[in-house]
Amino acid sequence: MTDCNKDCAASECAMELYERLTAQGDRVRTLKTDKAAKNEIDEAVKLLLQLKETYKKVTGQDYKSGSPPSEVTSTSGNGPTATTEDDDVVDPWTVATSNAKGIDYDKLIVRFGSSKIDQELIDRIERVTGQRPHHFLRRGIFFSHRDMHQILDAYENKKSFYLYTGRGPSSESMHVGHLIPFIFTKWLQEVFDVPLVIQLTDDEKYLWKDLKIEECYRFAIENCKDIIACGFDVNKTFIFSDLEYMGESPGFYKNVVKIQKHVTFNQVKGIFGFTDSDCIGKISFPAIQAAPSFSSSFPQIFNGRKDIQSLIPCAIDQDPYFRMTRDVAPRIGHSKPALFHSTFFPALQGAQTKMSASDPNSSIFLTDTAKQIKNKINKHAFSGGKDTIEEHRKFGGNTDVDVSFMYLTFFLEDDEKLEQIRKDYSSGALLTGELKKYLIDILQPLIAAHQERRKQVTDDVIKQFMTPRKLAFDF
Amino acid sequence: MTDCNKDCAASECAMELYERLTAQGDRVRTLKTDKAAKNEIDEAVKLLLQLKETYKKVTGQDYKSGSPPSEVTSTSGNGPTATTEDDDVVDPWTVATSNAKGIDYDKLIVRFGSSKIDQELIDRIERVTGQRPHHFLRRGIFFSHRDMHQILDAYENKKSFYLYTGRGPSSESMHVGHLIPFIFTKWLQEVFDVPLVIQLTDDEKYLWKDLKIEECYRFAIENCKDIIACGFDVNKTFIFSDLEYMGESPGFYKNVVKIQKHVTFNQVKGIFGFTDSDCIGKISFPAIQAAPSFSSSFPQIFNGRKDIQSLIPCAIDQDPYFRMTRDVAPRIGHSKPALFHSTFFPALQGAQTKMSASDPNSSIFLTDTAKQIKNKINKHAFSGGKDTIEEHRKFGGNTDVDVSFMYLTFFLEDDEKLEQIRKDYSSGALLTGELKKYLIDILQPLIAAHQERRKQVTDDVIKQFMTPRKLAFDF
Repeated sequence: MTDCNKDCAASECAMELYERLTAQGDRVRTLKTDKAAKNEIDEAVKLLLQLKETYKKVTGQDYKSGSPPSEVTSTSGNGPTATTEDDDVVDPWTVATSNAKGIDYDKLIVRFGSSKIDQELIDRIERVTGQRPHHFLRRGIFFSHRDMHQILDAYENKKSFYLYTGRGPSSESMHVGHLIPFIFTKWLQEVFDVPLVIQLTDDEKYLWKDLKIEECYRFAIENCKDIIACGFDVNKTFIFSDLEYMGESPGFYKNVVKIQKHVTFNQVKGIFGFTDSDCIGKISFPAIQAAPSFSSSFPQIFNGRKDIQSLIPCAIDQDPYFRMTRDVAPRIGHSKPALFHSTFFPALQGAQTKMSASDPNSSIFLTDTAKQIKNKINKHAFSGGKDTIEEHRKFGGNTDVDVSFMYLTFFLEDDEKLEQIRKDYSSGALLTGELKKYLIDILQPLIAAHQERRKQVTDDVIKQFMTPRKLAFDF
Repeated sequence: MTDCNKDCAASECAMELYERLTAQGDRVRTLKTDKAAKNEIDEAVKLLLQLKETYKKVTGQDYKSGSPPSEVTSTSGNGPTATTEDDDVVDPWTVATSNAKGIDYDKLIVRFGSSKIDQELIDRIERVTGQRPHHFLRRGIFFSHRDMHQILDAYENKKSFYLYTGRGPSSESMHVGHLIPFIFTKWLQEVFDVPLVIQLTDDEKYLWKDLKIEECYRFAIENCKDIIACGFDVNKTFIFSDLEYMGESPGFYKNVVKIQKHVTFNQVKGIFGFTDSDCIGKISFPAIQAAPSFSSSFPQIFNGRKDIQSLIPCAIDQDPYFRMTRDVAPRIGHSKPALFHSTFFPALQGAQTKMSASDPNSSIFLTDTAKQIKNKINKHAFSGGKDTIEEHRKFGGNTDVDVSFMYLTFFLEDDEKLEQIRKDYSSGALLTGELKKYLIDILQPLIAAHQERRKQVTDDVIKQFMTPRKLAFDF
């Protein structure tokens, strides 16, 4: 799983946008020279214009071929300007918007062609599982899906499925945002009682980052500890590093090659924006993230069966991988994976900036002390409050852009309490410091407990989770 | 290993040339648009012009963008016209020349930047090994090398190396030409006493051909039997299918990814002529053929050591893979593989046509009966003799274009006898039927003996050769 969008500083993202723009310009030129189909050219031009607009918003400069961005302006400390235009860029390496509320997810659903998670689906999940839907569902944090009704139809007919999620181990440290897919996946596993596979794409991190292969593998193991600390059941969960599992499985590589045969460079260029200067490892990597979507990649778990459907909970920036996977699936005799898409977890500085591994103040890390958590929230969490207490009391705060409030929607499970906070902050009854204290009081024990569980994760426990084996399910 | 050059009919090759030309035209245009470096553009233009000339020779038509070749003319049954121009095309998928003597190998050495195997090197091999050099060396069948002196320097200092060769299993049946690298490799293994790894690129055949993955694996096993029947020592030889070994080795995939990180699409486009319409599997495949050049791909054999150099005997059309490998090697901390290059084994119809799997009369197959061998040679082997016995007696035959004589240079070990045949045929003393009889008398028992040895190859023997394990060498 790629998550550069969560790891790169704003200036790096400007540079990435610049490079993507340059590549997209080349692509449009080539398509025109080659007299490509009109709709193909139109689509490429549309993306080019979108990128140009976003580039201008992010850098404050017009894109000029040959002139890389000199300075990032709009994501500076002065706070962002809200706009409502349809210029968000979302792919596995770039998440860019100029809107302080973050990405416009409804428009993303239309653009990606997925389905909104509506009340009817949430009610159906409750009926089928007999459990109250997770607050990530109730609050629209997981907001989009593909084929969930199909999964539920089959489940009601006693046909099982399995869960697949992942993590790109780009460093030792994970932040609270990285927990979101795992918390939700754990809930899904508990309510549906199905096998779970978790891919650690250490090969991808090696390909994309200036890291040694051994470092990437080490990060995979370190991240694995944090994932295990989320409380997964070792009898129902297989966690694997690509670098390791590729050499252990009779099924994984075969599926990778099958996928690689059915996807052209033109396609990955269109989907991921790869260019001719990209290494062939990047170009073929999407097949490696796609392969765990097919049960035959895990013959130990599924007894060689290739007809067990997968359900993938992930952040929506990963959808391009799985659009590609779903396109390929029927052509190689597999069922399409179903998906649950989450929104992005905002950086402390605001929903339109990125969390950066190189800036420890952009997020709360799973290694932070209680004191660090308190200081970060008090100092860095972008506030929707007014400049003075008087104004705040009079006009109230704006929870739509307040990062502490956004974090509470992720971590405060009590709906009534959350609604009370929203009302009180909006009315001005609750001050910014008080709002922040609610968040601090939730995150401090949550992270302390995570650290405590992580300490219990021994080498032996890691080995158990990462050994290819049959799980507690018969196929 | 790719060997389309040995498997495609002339008309398919014309189409391939056409596609390569179209792609190369695109490439030149893009380079110009992108204002690429002058030498890069010049080189691309040079290749374009070469391809155009060869296209004209092969098809009898000028290349015209948008108009695929309608008919192949120059390789028709009327016999070819000899030319001496420098327009041969040699890469893993296309071997094309208009010269009846075949490819101009001296020019190829200059173009590829390899070194000629001269008398000095042959003498040195004799000194170092204490064995008479193989007739493939004495007769220039293996004619080019890279870094053989380095291998011999190290060998004299008691530093070992290992042999790596391979085969692309595109069908069940192999022909006599396919034996050449294996016969020579076996000799090298015997005189140097070193480990040998043999790659069966079933993944490549799956990617390039309209075949199922299971068929490609089955062909790999069938071809493996023929390779074992060449007489390799099971204690010193490891034969592997990519599809199988990738899932068995902790080292292979890691090297594949390392190579894939250090090669761009631009590079494989330049080296192999890939286009944007090629699948991502083809684009990344070169790394899979490159990886066995590094000893760390075989931790079982080399005890995890990454400093054992490889020596690769192969037909020269495979050199592009290893030029790429040699370019990458120092950047990932490995030594460059050394190489021995062979000429191509001619089709029965003449040195400038290709052997075709779809035309059983284009070669002698390892499954042919004595009668089939006799008939094929008598009926189809292109003759350098004159039209009538009288003319033949008067002017003599031409051994430079006579396919039976060429085959004798491969399979008749006795130098004096071969020279006598050459003299007698050239003078007219030996008639075409008599020359063909010499070849028939050699090939019939040679292939019968091969078939007998192949019958002895049980499933258990295959399993022994194909199990990753330590060989009879300590590292």
